[in-house]
Amino acid sequence: MVLPILTFDKEFIYREQKGTVMLKNVETNNSTVLIESKKIESLKAVRYEVSPDQEYALFSYNVEPIYQHSYTGYYFLSKIPFGDPQSLDPPEVSNAKLQYAGWGPKGQQLIFIFENNIYYCAHVGKQAIRVVSTGKEGVIYNGLSDWLYEEEILKTHIAHWWSPDGTRLAYATINDSRVPIMDLPTYTGSVYPTVKPYHYPKAGCENPSISLHVIGLNGPTHYLEMTPPDDPRMRDYYITMVKWATSTKVAVNWLNRAQNVSILTLCDATTGVCTKKHEDESEAWLHRQNEEPIFSKDGRKFFFVRAIPQGGRGKFYHIGMASSQPNSSNDNLQSITSGDWDVTKILAYDEKRNKIYFLSTEDEPRRRHLYSADTEGTYNRQCLSCELIENCTYFSASFSHNMDYFLLKCEGPRVPMVTVHNTTDKKKIFELEVNAHVQKTISDRQMPKIEYKSIEIEDYTLPMQILKPATFTDTAHYPLLLVVDGTPGSQSVTEKFEVNWETVMVSSHGAIVVKFDGRGSGFQGTKLLHEVKRKLGSLEEKDQMKAVGTMLKEAYIDKTRVAVFGKDYGGYLSTYILPIKVENQGQSQGPVFTCGSALSPITDFKYYASAFSERYLGLLGIDNRAYEMTRLAHRVSSLEEQQFLIIHATADEKIHFQHTAELIAHLIRGKANYSLQIYPDESHYFHSSSLEQHLYQSIINFFVECFRIQDKLPTVTMKEEEEED
Amino acid sequence: MVLPILTFDKEFIYREQKGTVMLKNVETNNSTVLIESKKIESLKAVRYEVSPDQEYALFSYNVEPIYQHSYTGYYFLSKIPFGDPQSLDPPEVSNAKLQYAGWGPKGQQLIFIFENNIYYCAHVGKQAIRVVSTGKEGVIYNGLSDWLYEEEILKTHIAHWWSPDGTRLAYATINDSRVPIMDLPTYTGSVYPTVKPYHYPKAGCENPSISLHVIGLNGPTHYLEMTPPDDPRMRDYYITMVKWATSTKVAVNWLNRAQNVSILTLCDATTGVCTKKHEDESEAWLHRQNEEPIFSKDGRKFFFVRAIPQGGRGKFYHIGMASSQPNSSNDNLQSITSGDWDVTKILAYDEKRNKIYFLSTEDEPRRRHLYSADTEGTYNRQCLSCELIENCTYFSASFSHNMDYFLLKCEGPRVPMVTVHNTTDKKKIFELEVNAHVQKTISDRQMPKIEYKSIEIEDYTLPMQILKPATFTDTAHYPLLLVVDGTPGSQSVTEKFEVNWETVMVSSHGAIVVKFDGRGSGFQGTKLLHEVKRKLGSLEEKDQMKAVGTMLKEAYIDKTRVAVFGKDYGGYLSTYILPIKVENQGQSQGPVFTCGSALSPITDFKYYASAFSERYLGLLGIDNRAYEMTRLAHRVSSLEEQQFLIIHATADEKIHFQHTAELIAHLIRGKANYSLQIYPDESHYFHSSSLEQHLYQSIINFFVECFRIQDKLPTVTMKEEEEED
Repeated sequence: MVLPILTFDKEFIYREQKGTVMLKNVETNNSTVLIESKKIESLKAVRYEVSPDQEYALFSYNVEPIYQHSYTGYYFLSKIPFGDPQSLDPPEVSNAKLQYAGWGPKGQQLIFIFENNIYYCAHVGKQAIRVVSTGKEGVIYNGLSDWLYEEEILKTHIAHWWSPDGTRLAYATINDSRVPIMDLPTYTGSVYPTVKPYHYPKAGCENPSISLHVIGLNGPTHYLEMTPPDDPRMRDYYITMVKWATSTKVAVNWLNRAQNVSILTLCDATTGVCTKKHEDESEAWLHRQNEEPIFSKDGRKFFFVRAIPQGGRGKFYHIGMASSQPNSSNDNLQSITSGDWDVTKILAYDEKRNKIYFLSTEDEPRRRHLYSADTEGTYNRQCLSCELIENCTYFSASFSHNMDYFLLKCEGPRVPMVTVHNTTDKKKIFELEVNAHVQKTISDRQMPKIEYKSIEIEDYTLPMQILKPATFTDTAHYPLLLVVDGTPGSQSVTEKFEVNWETVMVSSHGAIVVKFDGRGSGFQGTKLLHEVKRKLGSLEEKDQMKAVGTMLKEAYIDKTRVAVFGKDYGGYLSTYILPIKVENQGQSQGPVFTCGSALSPITDFKYYASAFSERYLGLLGIDNRAYEMTRLAHRVSSLEEQQFLIIHATADEKIHFQHTAELIAHLIRGKANYSLQIYPDESHYFHSSSLEQHLYQSIINFFVECFRIQDKLPTVTMKEEEEED
Repeated sequence: MVLPILTFDKEFIYREQKGTVMLKNVETNNSTVLIESKKIESLKAVRYEVSPDQEYALFSYNVEPIYQHSYTGYYFLSKIPFGDPQSLDPPEVSNAKLQYAGWGPKGQQLIFIFENNIYYCAHVGKQAIRVVSTGKEGVIYNGLSDWLYEEEILKTHIAHWWSPDGTRLAYATINDSRVPIMDLPTYTGSVYPTVKPYHYPKAGCENPSISLHVIGLNGPTHYLEMTPPDDPRMRDYYITMVKWATSTKVAVNWLNRAQNVSILTLCDATTGVCTKKHEDESEAWLHRQNEEPIFSKDGRKFFFVRAIPQGGRGKFYHIGMASSQPNSSNDNLQSITSGDWDVTKILAYDEKRNKIYFLSTEDEPRRRHLYSADTEGTYNRQCLSCELIENCTYFSASFSHNMDYFLLKCEGPRVPMVTVHNTTDKKKIFELEVNAHVQKTISDRQMPKIEYKSIEIEDYTLPMQILKPATFTDTAHYPLLLVVDGTPGSQSVTEKFEVNWETVMVSSHGAIVVKFDGRGSGFQGTKLLHEVKRKLGSLEEKDQMKAVGTMLKEAYIDKTRVAVFGKDYGGYLSTYILPIKVENQGQSQGPVFTCGSALSPITDFKYYASAFSERYLGLLGIDNRAYEMTRLAHRVSSLEEQQFLIIHATADEKIHFQHTAELIAHLIRGKANYSLQIYPDESHYFHSSSLEQHLYQSIINFFVECFRIQDKLPTVTMKEEEEED
């Protein structure tokens, strides 16, 4: 189920379990069928989008993923509810595979992108015209992200933004021509294996260049480039955020390559002149650079998230309100919120009620509640979601255009559900059916019991999550599985509902799973976050081992069956941690972990994306010590006793197979045993669900086997039958 | 220890354990030091060669392997015994990495090859001159093999041949320009992985073209191409053998691409005209096309090996003697030997004693004895090596120039040794010290007991070899390991002495190892050999399973611990066989094998070398059924219960990693479990001995682990201590 969004004043569009696309009026509670599921099926369409005037739907089929978000597909338009399909193509090509197609904000206007060029169509039936022509496939991107922007900077493949009135389109032009090329091999399907080259900037290498343009769509097209800040610190920069303030002003966030200086500007789309609205600087790196400010209708006032000092734990992220005065470059800037917790997302500004709506961690770092705050007076704060839904503490939300309704998605700890509420009294006026698949999963298994514990590390009190089998009894002995992620700024311990392979390890194989957010993790202040600067791995190791040590003191943990798992950055950490030996009065006592597994691990940050590695380790070429120190090669010289499973897709476009190849070369030199699973020609994101199932079954099998071999003590919870299927 | 060869009348050169290079006179028993080991060490030289006049030695250092035989290196000359090193370089380059350097047959003449061009030096101190200049690196080879010729056709990197008087040089020119390119990846050592492209013809693809040239080296150089047979069957041909008959005549063997027609010609090096001397045709493929004929001094008479019918078991390989009459194209051809056994190598023609010396399988297919046969009268045959050395039945040999002495290498069953004998009375006159390393290995371990058994399959009686622990007792239970090779024409069951990982499995881990030569194997007649034509795998499967079935009837075999291993073609077979289930009255009863392993398996013959795949499966593109039927993809759909370890080097230049990638893609689709070990950037032949040790230790660990998990019955021979080291 795609999360519905309240896009109109009192209506929203959603898709039913059976596939039918519905328009729901929250006031009248009337539902209208927009597109029948049969139609979508007969057209083999996988995605749909309804035009703002609700006259037409845009469908795509034969969709093929490219990277995490991007894909190509064939598109057609169809009148709602029963029209014939009309293929959407550039004038010069028929049956074209498009990189993007989508409606504009008004009527039936739409754009699509083909061969990195942008095409505009004023309304259905009108010939599309090419409005941007500088594109070059795989090299110069218009309106779309290249690999780096999609994965690490904008975190979406969409790099164009409609003005709210639909008269203008802002788009990024990303030029990869100077970025070195990486070749991804394809082994199967041809007699001689082939390679797929693409531009991927590794640490220290030439980055893509980016520029932002605005094109007017009414009348003769005209282009204007938004002028980047004239600042010596911004010689090599990223654009991390673009958001229209009004129909002629666009807000842009510029970040220098070192990622410690950012400038928020408001650009005049009619002149290209950008005025600085805010500047930020950090001794470490700047975090959360993608977030959009929210503007008042006249564009004079805006709200944005910025880090402000809150005492000993460093800075926390809070809402700043900037009110500009005409003909004055100095804005009046005030903090609407404060405290040792984070605003995680600003959702909407309600000018009628003078309120700002947002999500925050005020209750607990592992929770997300919906709050409102007054934008006047004492900025009174109110929790809208607290105790609104039973056993639910982790929310996301969206507001209707007129702010009269909000749609609330409960994401945990209970089984997720979606409700629509009246903003004034929070009254629930509608509830969507819960995903039947999840429901079934729940009833099939006894869900783990989830407990939380605090661990003191230096001055911090840090959260640990423990997943225990439903049948847990503290007289039995259980194997322990530590799951690490640890990407700086991320969070492993949350109250989100999850059913995944870790749950299976607990429910079906009697393991106890532990997660811990130590130094480097997010949502607990920038001091904790920035601790890992230029020394990725070493503090995380200490903190994760502290968590393991705490667990090992429990009598119910079998010390001979302890395992660790991580993927991506977590694969770096799990491999980093795996060789650790038990120390007793300075004497090594054999390994802590019986086995470990790393899925697509980063093993050397100089092989990884520039924007990621440089953010945490600094620019390569200036001081390479941090890169040298963090190489996993130095860690794996003594791995003879542990079982080690490495898994990597050979066509991984994000963390190249090279990482695993290099790691294995060192393992072999150190005479270590290892076992490898590869997924030939698969990408990082395993776009096939059957392969993903094979992947997680392999991981489960590995840990089950590992825990079974070491099975010296009888446990009460091992269900042998379930392991065989 | 490099096997010494009797290159002179009564002297031979060999290298002592300590490294000193000695010249030994077998009549006087005097030894002279040619090069001291200290000198070789101080020069860091790894190879040496003494000039025919024994005045100079040619050394090489920084030798880097390319494919199986080929390598590059830096060379220098040094006067014997104490001269200063003189670097060997083309006139235009200093410090050149050469592809080849070697003495000619007379005095100090030598040639070397650089950038695929040939350089000649008449004697040490004289400037080298470039005599062949058409070379192009990686594309046009002069005097050297390309990948295909080195690996599959000539089976050496050397593709030039000196006339016996040193006045002429025959060389092949191999043109790869139309052969498709294969890219070998290199993951480590650079920020962006690189590829090494080379020409590799897969089945059905364009082959290299070859031509044979002779160059005169005395006086002004002149070139002449030897004319290929004007025969419509030879449109696309291989040259498989070149041998000088006299100083002006050169014998050449031409083989058509389908490898079922061969023409042996004698070419006049002064005119380039080639006269057909023999023609061979086969309904299947022609086997043993590399072997050199042996000529009388005047070139009028020659001896060669050819397959002749011997009744129900097809053809066997015997010595044919051809005597040419001047001015007549019809040679008189007679068979010197006959019977249902093979001559495996013709060694020398003794014109003084009218004898031909050769090795054969007359005693047993698994043995090699040295024989002489009269070349006149009734061709009386005599075994020279039979009962000459105790417990030795597998020999190789070489003769002195004047045939008065022969050097005998005993290769098994006893520990290998080298002796020199008087030809007349076979009396041993000299014995070389035995390799101390092998000696030590022997005393450290209890060698396996080797037994042989015959198995009846259809009309054949076929040999099986069984390796049992020295402590074998038939009241205990042992795990069984089947080791398969099975390349058509090869032989697994021989009496050669071997100490390898299989021996370790028997001696240290109490396994019983079995090998069996079934249909498709060599040295037992061409009927058995050719049975597998166009259906590789299916008959070998039946035969190997018959061998396993025979073993499983033994009470001392633990039926729950049965494993299979193979590499290369054997990896194809082991994977082919692994899924087999026990059948009982038509009911499947679970897998026969608990675990299996394949090292660098061929998984699809259309990805493998043209000359190999086409020999056994026919030309791809004409009838592809044989290729389709032999794909392993069809076999591995049900491998859920077995443990399966696949091992492959990622830069394998012979059997590309593609084979394993394709296999794994199918295993994943079939939800099979597998485990993979890769050797990043390693080649097929593991040119590093420490990696080879890691490789075999991994295989041993895998089988030991497999046999241990299934260890339900106590065995008397498992030595747990040894498994840990």
